[in-house]
Amino acid sequence: MMPDQSARLSAQMAFLNEADRLKSVLRATTLVDGSRRENSGEHSWHLALYAIVLADQSAPGVRIDRVIRMLVLHDLVEIDVGDVPIHSANGQAHGSAVTQKAELIAAKRIFGLLPPDLGAEFMALWQEFEAAETADAVFAKALDRVQPVMANLMSGGGTWVEYNVTSDQLDARVGSKIARGAPRLWDWVRERTRSYFDAP
Amino acid sequence: MMPDQSARLSAQMAFLNEADRLKSVLRATTLVDGSRRENSGEHSWHLALYAIVLADQSAPGVRIDRVIRMLVLHDLVEIDVGDVPIHSANGQAHGSAVTQKAELIAAKRIFGLLPPDLGAEFMALWQEFEAAETADAVFAKALDRVQPVMANLMSGGGTWVEYNVTSDQLDARVGSKIARGAPRLWDWVRERTRSYFDAP
Repeated sequence: MMPDQSARLSAQMAFLNEADRLKSVLRATTLVDGSRRENSGEHSWHLALYAIVLADQSAPGVRIDRVIRMLVLHDLVEIDVGDVPIHSANGQAHGSAVTQKAELIAAKRIFGLLPPDLGAEFMALWQEFEAAETADAVFAKALDRVQPVMANLMSGGGTWVEYNVTSDQLDARVGSKIARGAPRLWDWVRERTRSYFDAP
Repeated sequence: MMPDQSARLSAQMAFLNEADRLKSVLRATTLVDGSRRENSGEHSWHLALYAIVLADQSAPGVRIDRVIRMLVLHDLVEIDVGDVPIHSANGQAHGSAVTQKAELIAAKRIFGLLPPDLGAEFMALWQEFEAAETADAVFAKALDRVQPVMANLMSGGGTWVEYNVTSDQLDARVGSKIARGAPRLWDWVRERTRSYFDAP
């Protein structure tokens, strides 16, 4: 093998080994059976599966294969920053300027392990996801929001109980993002969250 | 929402909730840091990332987005069957007729939770992966074999120690599959596995 090919492969493998650490980043959400907290690696896998299965919920023009790629890499920054739960700090920590700055520094370090062409591709996809402006990113964000809702519904409340979340807070923090990317999906889910929150 | 649309979504979500159980299926391989065994959900995520990062190692004509889809769903049958380690039973259990039969029954049950069009699509992709005849499946299999090799190299031997694997057994059971789908990648990895096995 030519030395530059070997150096390229070494960079690719160093990145893939570093990425393994995402399996040790714990989220607030539990598994569907409530047995333990979910990690961000398996969460990212589940979202890729959501994208394949729920492709028919996306807007016309959404390219599902780009959505899958975004979802596979969207949480890698958490290797350095950790997961910031949506409902923590009364909904104020997730997406805050402080969190965003730390995540950008993490993205530069982690994607910087890759050969430059791949690093630039990953950075662009991650920033597109974070900005949530393109149709692909809007759908990816909707899936990222709906998967924990399903886990909470299945496990008897989950983070809603832990963070004293109300039905209105759920609609504002989560439902709005799901409705934007997958309105029929939110209709279906909201019927079920209302039953949960309205239960005596 | 029309009743048939709602029924379709209910089937899609039932499948996605069932898929969550893959996060509780433990593999023989550990995380790169050796801290615990890897589960098949996070393993599947890592492989999707491998496919994106190592696309330049695939043969001409390989469609990486199909490879990613195959890798995302390739282990779902383990929800019913569990993981059968490559090196267990002296290399005889993985891929045995008994295992294959049990996995087919599992695929029918699990993919059968989906709406019929999606269920058929998943079954076809999974069977293509298992048959390892198309270029896409051959590359996907190569990645599925190389990721545990990297984990073992990083964690000081891992399942090679546990199952008393020799360098020749590794070449036969694993190396041949990697070399078939990604020959340059196997050259790079084999240099490192030889250093491991030849170390005094």
